[in-house]
Order: sequence, then C-alpha cells, then structure tokens
Amino acid sequence: MKIRRSERMVLISNYLINHPYELTSLSTFAERYESAKSSISEDISIIKRAFETSEIGDIETITGASGGVIFTPSISDQEARKVAMDLCGRLSESDRILPGGYIYLSDLLSTPKILKQIGRIITKAFKGQRIDAVMTVATKGVPLANAVADVLNVPFVIVRRDLKITEGSTVSVNYASGSSGRIEKMFLSKRSLKPGSRVLIVDDFLKGGGTINGMVSLLTEFDSTLAGVAVFADNVQGVRDEMSYKSLLTVTNINIKDASIAVQLGNIFEE
Amino acid sequence: MKIRRSERMVLISNYLINHPYELTSLSTFAERYESAKSSISEDISIIKRAFETSEIGDIETITGASGGVIFTPSISDQEARKVAMDLCGRLSESDRILPGGYIYLSDLLSTPKILKQIGRIITKAFKGQRIDAVMTVATKGVPLANAVADVLNVPFVIVRRDLKITEGSTVSVNYASGSSGRIEKMFLSKRSLKPGSRVLIVDDFLKGGGTINGMVSLLTEFDSTLAGVAVFADNVQGVRDEMSYKSLLTVTNINIKDASIAVQLGNIFEE
Repeated sequence: MKIRRSERMVLISNYLINHPYELTSLSTFAERYESAKSSISEDISIIKRAFETSEIGDIETITGASGGVIFTPSISDQEARKVAMDLCGRLSESDRILPGGYIYLSDLLSTPKILKQIGRIITKAFKGQRIDAVMTVATKGVPLANAVADVLNVPFVIVRRDLKITEGSTVSVNYASGSSGRIEKMFLSKRSLKPGSRVLIVDDFLKGGGTINGMVSLLTEFDSTLAGVAVFADNVQGVRDEMSYKSLLTVTNINIKDASIAVQLGNIFEE
Repeated sequence: MKIRRSERMVLISNYLINHPYELTSLSTFAERYESAKSSISEDISIIKRAFETSEIGDIETITGASGGVIFTPSISDQEARKVAMDLCGRLSESDRILPGGYIYLSDLLSTPKILKQIGRIITKAFKGQRIDAVMTVATKGVPLANAVADVLNVPFVIVRRDLKITEGSTVSVNYASGSSGRIEKMFLSKRSLKPGSRVLIVDDFLKGGGTINGMVSLLTEFDSTLAGVAVFADNVQGVRDEMSYKSLLTVTNINIKDASIAVQLGNIFEE
C-alpha cells in the first residue's frame, strides 16, 4: 500500500517495536509501503534518532546484501531506577509478610505494565550477550521469564517441580530445596530446549539458591550453557559470593514481629 | 524536550502502543514534547489513520476537560486467520501426540511472537466488553493469560492446583477433573482478585470443561462475574453446548494408532 511519509514512519516504528532483535531488510519495508529504499532509509534514521534520544532502544543498521535494521529495546537509567524505587516501596508494605517470613509478591508479578518494565531492565543488564532462551521454574517465575523472553524475542522454557503427562519425556535433576530443607526433583521436557543453547535463568526470589543451582545442572543435561541469572528480588544472607546473579531488588531484612520489610535497589543498579 | 514533528509522531505512537486501553490527555503529550495541543492533535490524527488502515488498532478521542486518547490494539481478520492457519499446521504435527492421547503444545505457548498474536486475536473477540482481570490455572495457562492481560492492560490471576505458602490465605473450590476422573481442589489467593471484577477466563486446552467450571465457581466466591472463556484449542466432544467459549483452534480427532491429529480453525473465526 502507498501511504504518506508520516504514516509510513508510524507503521515502521510499530513494526520494529513488535519485532525486537530481528533483522528486517529495507526492501521488506520498501515493498510493503511501495517506496524507494532511500526514503525508507531516511525514515529509519528519523526513527533511530527518536528512539535513541528517548532511550526507547537502539536501531542498528547492517549494510550489505543481507543487511537491514535491528531494533533492541532498552530503558533509560532514570526510568529503570524510578521503576525499581516504586517497586521498593510496594515490596516494603508490611501486609506482604506471610507466615514463615515469606513475602507475597504475586500481585506485582501479574501486572503487565510492571512486567514489561522489569523485562526491559533485566535485558538491558545482559546487553550484547547472545541469549537463545530464558529458563524459569513454575509457577511464579513464568510471567517474569515471559516478560524477559518477550523483550529478547526468544522462547522461554518452564522447569516443573512435578511430573505432568502433557510435557512428554522429561529430564530430571535433584536439588537441595532451601525452603523444605530436603532434596527435591525438578523436571524439564526433553523437547523444550535445543542443545547448545545459551540460557538466561530468571526467577522471582533468590534465597538459598537451591532452585537456581538445580536449573544450572539441568543446563548441563541439555548440553547448554548459562548466560546469566536474574531475579526480581534477593534475600541471600551470605551465599552472595557463591553465585553470580543480578537482582532488581534486595530484601535486607524481614522482621516478622514488627511486620516490617526493608528493601533496597538490587545489584543490577550497582557500579 | 523539543523535537521535530516526525520524531514526535514516532514517540507518541510508541507511547500509545505501550499503554493500551489507557486514557492519556493531549496535555500530557503537549508538555512532554513542548508542543501546542493543536499540533499533538494533528499528530494523533495521522497516527490514528495509519493504525486504523493497517488494523494495528483503533485510537479513540474523548473530548472535554477529562478527555484524551485511548489506543485499543487489534489485528486484521486476514492476519488473524493466517496466524491460526499456521498454528493449525504446527498443532497437526504427528510427533505432538503423547501417551494417553495428550498433545504437546508447550513449545507454541512459550514463543513470545505467537503469544502476542494469540493475545490480540482473543481480545479482539471480546472487544467493547469491560474486562477487569484475566484468570487462568497454573502452569500452562499462565503465558496465555499473560499475553491476553498484556493487550488489555489488566492484571491476571493464577489459580493453583496445589497450596503454596507464598500465596497467603486462599479460597478453594472442588472441581471434577476430566483427566483424573476425580474430584480435585483448586486454590486462589484471597488478595489476588478484587470483588466485583469482570473476569475473562483463559486456558490452553478445553476438553471436559472441569477446570473451567472450577474457575467459574471460584468467581462466585470472589463476588466476581464471568466476562467470557477463551482457549487456545478445544477438543470438546459433546459438551460444546453446555458452555459458551471461544477457541482459536479445534482438534477434531486424535488418532493414536496412526499418530495423526486433525485440527481446524476454532469457533472464534465463526460467523
């Protein structure tokens, strides 16, 4: 379809936003909007300037026959910190403390607007690294993995704590569960992860690290490697040095008696 | 910040895409981009024409002091059918049949690009209806509910089949599980759903309808009402008249001996 330049720019930006991390040739746009490649190229430089000035993301132009443009979503440091500070406030609400000193956070991890922002903050921390898939453990990690995979435009895989017939054949590993203090099993469907994948592990809460260590050993079973670990919140108390991870928020203290939770920005904002 | 008109249009479209179903006043944009409201208004009419011609979505303008613009994402019928036909092909792959006649579909429901499109197709089918939350059951329904909630810009709630301490107090109901042939329990955290909500129930696969009936009875416990039911695929064999639902795909036959699955477009494409 032939359209006015201003409308074409709106449509090209919409396309790029919906196809992050994907190479699209200028000819694709030129054919789609019946325009010269030189006009498309000008449109893209305007979109690039707008996106980069507002830190919506970067647009990379790859020249040559198999070239094109790739949009990488981002978030400004200022907005990322604002989002995280808001979440600090939400997470410190005293009525989040559950029996046993657990923290209720399902509401935060089921709000699309929050998830989108978390997705951008986490992926920004792994910028420039190859990531083929995002892995998490059912159930609370799923929306988070979904959000991160959404930004990266890669599939996510869900490790389960129980065996479900609808997953087909699975590979299982044992792991030491910090919460139950026992050895438990986790399962991953054999066909869910391609061998040789570089995987980003994502979870809602990091405490003892048992679940994440379990997922890391699953990666070996799938001949895959770890690209990194990112969590919504951590409360690690000592194991911090044993495992390299990035967290959005750090819970420094949970006082059940006073019903108070102390939360600060996580190590993703360090340096 | 003061920017050129073409860049401003790119930024306003990006903003609208990321804030669906949200009323934004023209003054917000006018202040943000240091422009006259009349210029913003012209920008929006160009964006509106581009979005509506390509069926990316509608932009509604509400006049008056508390007015502004609302973007409602959509998908063209042609694209929706293309997506669903592709999924028909994927779902018919013979190696998806699992022991017991189950179908493996985790890979389809963990690919962000597919989920985004499904989200748009499902929400389009409920256009114009008030929906306050999307409900699903763990685990496989979660990415689907997330995708639909994402388009609608509302929270999603996750019903669980097991009791988890991290959910706090829960409400439980019994339901007849078709797959086990027994009465089972499902749980929903008390604080996850506001009373008086109109809820869209979403699930991956509809067979006997037990799980969905369970979720419907949970709605009553939360003084909430059903806005509708949408599933990725159905294979209902007879109960079709008992329950009103919309499906993207319909599995008409699973032949374990021949390892063949017959799939057609679901009733969301009817009429």
